[in-house]
Amino acid sequence: MRIATIQTSFGPRAVVQAGDQFIDLHGTDSSLPSNVRQLLAMESAERAAAIDSVLRKKDSIRYPVGSAKYLAPVVDPQKIVCVGLNYKDHAEESKMAIPKEPVLFSKFPTALIGHGENIVLPKVSTKVDYEAELVIVIGKRGRHLSAAEAGKYIAGYTVGHDVSARDWQLEKDGKQWMAGKTFDTFAPCGPVIVTSDELGDPHVLPISLRLNGKVLQNSSTNQMIFRAEQIVSYLSQIFTVEPGDLIFTGTPPGIGHARTPAIYMKPGDVAEVEIQGIGVLSNPVVGE
Amino acid sequence: MRIATIQTSFGPRAVVQAGDQFIDLHGTDSSLPSNVRQLLAMESAERAAAIDSVLRKKDSIRYPVGSAKYLAPVVDPQKIVCVGLNYKDHAEESKMAIPKEPVLFSKFPTALIGHGENIVLPKVSTKVDYEAELVIVIGKRGRHLSAAEAGKYIAGYTVGHDVSARDWQLEKDGKQWMAGKTFDTFAPCGPVIVTSDELGDPHVLPISLRLNGKVLQNSSTNQMIFRAEQIVSYLSQIFTVEPGDLIFTGTPPGIGHARTPAIYMKPGDVAEVEIQGIGVLSNPVVGE
Repeated sequence: MRIATIQTSFGPRAVVQAGDQFIDLHGTDSSLPSNVRQLLAMESAERAAAIDSVLRKKDSIRYPVGSAKYLAPVVDPQKIVCVGLNYKDHAEESKMAIPKEPVLFSKFPTALIGHGENIVLPKVSTKVDYEAELVIVIGKRGRHLSAAEAGKYIAGYTVGHDVSARDWQLEKDGKQWMAGKTFDTFAPCGPVIVTSDELGDPHVLPISLRLNGKVLQNSSTNQMIFRAEQIVSYLSQIFTVEPGDLIFTGTPPGIGHARTPAIYMKPGDVAEVEIQGIGVLSNPVVGE
Repeated sequence: MRIATIQTSFGPRAVVQAGDQFIDLHGTDSSLPSNVRQLLAMESAERAAAIDSVLRKKDSIRYPVGSAKYLAPVVDPQKIVCVGLNYKDHAEESKMAIPKEPVLFSKFPTALIGHGENIVLPKVSTKVDYEAELVIVIGKRGRHLSAAEAGKYIAGYTVGHDVSARDWQLEKDGKQWMAGKTFDTFAPCGPVIVTSDELGDPHVLPISLRLNGKVLQNSSTNQMIFRAEQIVSYLSQIFTVEPGDLIFTGTPPGIGHARTPAIYMKPGDVAEVEIQGIGVLSNPVVGE
């Protein structure tokens, strides 16, 4: 199943894809929420039955996929967790040690944008870089999960772009990365969440980033040091994972900051992150 | 005005203090929200008029302050931002440079607890330390605010405890502090938010921490390197501040990790943070 949040004349709506149409869940069955986080928080058998019934209805509210105005698939997550240095080659190009445990930082929900929305280059940064990432979407509340059981807490996956102002990430006192990672619009996500059952193995997916059509990152999620289930298990020792939590799982090599000369994004660019089996997340880049 | 969130038989409720009683805003006037974040998001003149009307009512729903079961004053903030090293003496005891700009990290909402709730020592840490902090509560959405205008975006202040697992904060690969700061229960806040108009100058307040009655931190908010308005102005260059956002403003010297021998919290302890003019935030410490 492919789940998205799109802007409609009724406001943001959780939708499920059926061919070339998105079906409005709340619009068709008012007992279903219009918010994806609340949808994920429903008891799973109850949700599956309600969605199944919506999909069978002949008079469901539908929107063409081709003209959808996307928002981030979860617009109001309680957490956006990011794992750094999770591809060996990227840790090397960043001149950082290959981590023995996941390195964690965060973004705030104000950084979220959907497919097609603008990445805004802050006037206070001159080094805004790109990072293609697979994003885990949590489907169930849990704590102290083993890696074996963590998979059951993952609702699905989406495509993410961990936009990074390197000057703010790396050159400030205290060396905390968060500020450089959480400028408004620095967490593009989408277009859709693909549920785990439909996606299959998330660790065999080609992942790439194109800037103005030129391939700058090109790898596979099979290169991830810590796998999705290991990451969720690790995080659940620290905090309760909750439906709608988004977990960015790290970027492959090829970032602009590690190149000679460095490549940073500039107004007029178009950044596309593609993960095979999920989709293409495309965002224009504009100045502030 | 003093605003809190308390647990009632109707669920969590936003309340306003009147003497030794808390008045249930939504319970008394159903047009007012039961959630403090939504209350802060209301247009301020409309909110003031509605609260004023509730306070005049003879038949308002009331709870005695003395037996209130507190939750964090904002239970579902979109952001918990923390400023590190914001007292000169604390930067020195931490053997870190005195920062030229605020050092930023974050906690997740799952870390929040209220006055009287248990701080749970994670089984995976042996170095859980205390930090007394003044917490800014944002009242209005804003971006790119000058320090002169930032004060208008602050709804008020509460008392915070930035509980810190030093092993997870300082000894992990990547040196990102967040993991050690965001274990469940590591963000006690409360008991109440005191609005800016009632509190007056937030930079003249004695702040202290007592562990089992013994004073371990004892300073004044006049020692803060970056003042509340400067912090909000600085943050607003990075992201949109929103009603209900909580900003921990750093801790004075005296932390347990910098002592010889070090002091860490243990099951059975009681940690109290006091800020004059706001109140005492007391939390028992238990093992996991």
